[in-house]
Amino acid sequence: MSVVAPFGFEAAGVSAGIKKPGEKDLAVVAAAGPVAAAGIFTRNRSAAAPVLLSRHHLRDHQARAIVLNSGCANAGTGSAGEKAALAMAQATAEGLGCRVPDVLVASTGPIGPPLPIDHICNAIPDAIGALNDQSGTEAATAIMTTDTVNKEATAVGSGYVIGGMAKGAAMVRPDMATMLAVLTTDAVLSWQALETMLRRVGDKTFNCLNIDGCPSTNDSVFLLASGAAGVRPDLEEFEQRLHDVCLDLALQMARDGEMTDRVITVNVRGAVNDAIAREIGRTMTDSDLVRASFYGGDPNWGRLLAAAGAGPFPVNPNAMTVSYNGVEVARNSVQLDYARNALLATLRQGDFSVDVEVGTGEGQATIYACDLTPGYVTFNSEPS
Amino acid sequence: MSVVAPFGFEAAGVSAGIKKPGEKDLAVVAAAGPVAAAGIFTRNRSAAAPVLLSRHHLRDHQARAIVLNSGCANAGTGSAGEKAALAMAQATAEGLGCRVPDVLVASTGPIGPPLPIDHICNAIPDAIGALNDQSGTEAATAIMTTDTVNKEATAVGSGYVIGGMAKGAAMVRPDMATMLAVLTTDAVLSWQALETMLRRVGDKTFNCLNIDGCPSTNDSVFLLASGAAGVRPDLEEFEQRLHDVCLDLALQMARDGEMTDRVITVNVRGAVNDAIAREIGRTMTDSDLVRASFYGGDPNWGRLLAAAGAGPFPVNPNAMTVSYNGVEVARNSVQLDYARNALLATLRQGDFSVDVEVGTGEGQATIYACDLTPGYVTFNSEPS
Repeated sequence: MSVVAPFGFEAAGVSAGIKKPGEKDLAVVAAAGPVAAAGIFTRNRSAAAPVLLSRHHLRDHQARAIVLNSGCANAGTGSAGEKAALAMAQATAEGLGCRVPDVLVASTGPIGPPLPIDHICNAIPDAIGALNDQSGTEAATAIMTTDTVNKEATAVGSGYVIGGMAKGAAMVRPDMATMLAVLTTDAVLSWQALETMLRRVGDKTFNCLNIDGCPSTNDSVFLLASGAAGVRPDLEEFEQRLHDVCLDLALQMARDGEMTDRVITVNVRGAVNDAIAREIGRTMTDSDLVRASFYGGDPNWGRLLAAAGAGPFPVNPNAMTVSYNGVEVARNSVQLDYARNALLATLRQGDFSVDVEVGTGEGQATIYACDLTPGYVTFNSEPS
Repeated sequence: MSVVAPFGFEAAGVSAGIKKPGEKDLAVVAAAGPVAAAGIFTRNRSAAAPVLLSRHHLRDHQARAIVLNSGCANAGTGSAGEKAALAMAQATAEGLGCRVPDVLVASTGPIGPPLPIDHICNAIPDAIGALNDQSGTEAATAIMTTDTVNKEATAVGSGYVIGGMAKGAAMVRPDMATMLAVLTTDAVLSWQALETMLRRVGDKTFNCLNIDGCPSTNDSVFLLASGAAGVRPDLEEFEQRLHDVCLDLALQMARDGEMTDRVITVNVRGAVNDAIAREIGRTMTDSDLVRASFYGGDPNWGRLLAAAGAGPFPVNPNAMTVSYNGVEVARNSVQLDYARNALLATLRQGDFSVDVEVGTGEGQATIYACDLTPGYVTFNSEPS
């Protein structure tokens, strides 16, 4: 059900001819009128045109619709790209009869090629004509790139619903990564509440995902609240439900990482604070050597130690304690005797967890990482 | 000839039994007495015990000898590792009859396992007994890890010689990387001159090498000046010759990157200053997607744009101009029509160059990067 699960939202996914003929590549999610909205975006300094435009359009904290395309990121496209992003918003606003600044825009796909804006503008009326409150899966399908499955999630709160759709695959090391997500709710919420909660939840979910250590130009997460349920939610409950939906989508992305085999849950403990714990976890899982050891199911804690120290964050190289699937392999940076063959056998089976205590404080974070596989390299090496 | 090419140095490489029986794994380079010395080291916060000790021993800016082992990095070894590094220095000082602080120490190999210090201390007298002015290659061989060839270089100045040996392979993203290098000269130079020139040259050579984006715990470069040639060199000439030797060794490391296929020379132009140009180049070549495109010979400039923006450095996403092997593929962030098949054919042939203009100033730097190959992943995934 995804984004159309809450009252007050319609969606559509159609084929605009950006990807192969017949493949869905254009999605619209729309409310009945302008509603409270919040967004979080890539911090990449090469942020794509749609990111710049959506950030601008969110300055009044409201939106009527989001138009999203796959098959082209509209990044690295200069001022022509900026015009194309605006044209997408204009065509959507015209179709819906709303103000242009009430339309948010997102694109995903290869970086560099120009956006086929004529194809998109031709298809936007079709998409708007197809809008209905059942087509969440069509929209979620239309934003896929190298994703192998569409990604949807919902959570039910006390008298309201939260729905979401996302795409991931590669170039996913959010801050944000090339991930797009649209979240909707029918709860009654101010934009301030949406923004605060989205930022906090995004930091603990999407921003804790590390598929390949490559921060994208296009990451965007939008949260729209229609208020159609007429319920003012308990904020603590809402934030927890929002967290559930976002974590669900983030884990769906991790499991569908481009040509990856496993999801490794890395729990960092004992950092100076939670934010630094997250950065240490991200730095560790950025390392090719660490992710290659994940692929091999090798409890190579020395690489974690080396990678943790590579970042600008304080770690105590003499106080690192590391466990794989609960088996302690090093304590205070001294390798232990452990039942190595038994551990190797469990690590070979699939997903596993790594606990890293860095010995500098009380901060903690959990990172959801993918392994680095030969298949990922081959897949991403081929000229398109 | 390497480190023994200049007058006043002897070297030896022996087998201490750290690696497989019979494989050389312990090297000593020694001057006839204490000489002026300088060093540059990893900035990894998990710096290994030998790095900490050598940095400490260089506080008086002189050294008599360097003892180096391969087969174990003595990193992630806590206080036992610190004692082991000191024991290596003590045994070497005893054998040579010099002060302990006049011995520098370096280790390279897997991170985590304890250093087999008894084996090393037993073999140090053998190494000292084997010291002579012909054994540069033996020493260069004894510091190899997954290197497939030993790495040596020399340059001749006006009345003096500079020699060097190094090891590289993987975990090589100097700042420094797991690279070790020993540089010697018989010119007469103060430690201040050595330190200034080594730092400047290191930044333009070893620190511009990016094999796998993984900064190591053990990188160390030492420069010793025996003065045995009796010549006070022109500093400008000396720095140029030192640059030649360091660049030669850095390129040997790039060509011998672990399971890598190509060396890609990335010239960054138009950054705010040279240091930022270097950081942008390093950030770009850290990206798995960029290095996978290097492997495939794919002129995927969009990934360069995305990766450049991922760092904390100012880039202008609308002003990036990119050429592969001199063929411009994008100008001011707009993709050009270019003879794609002809370019793909040249990129498929082996090493190539990439020029990236980032449009924010006059700074420039050249990075020597390796491609990311499926073989690298497989090789580094296997539990040892």
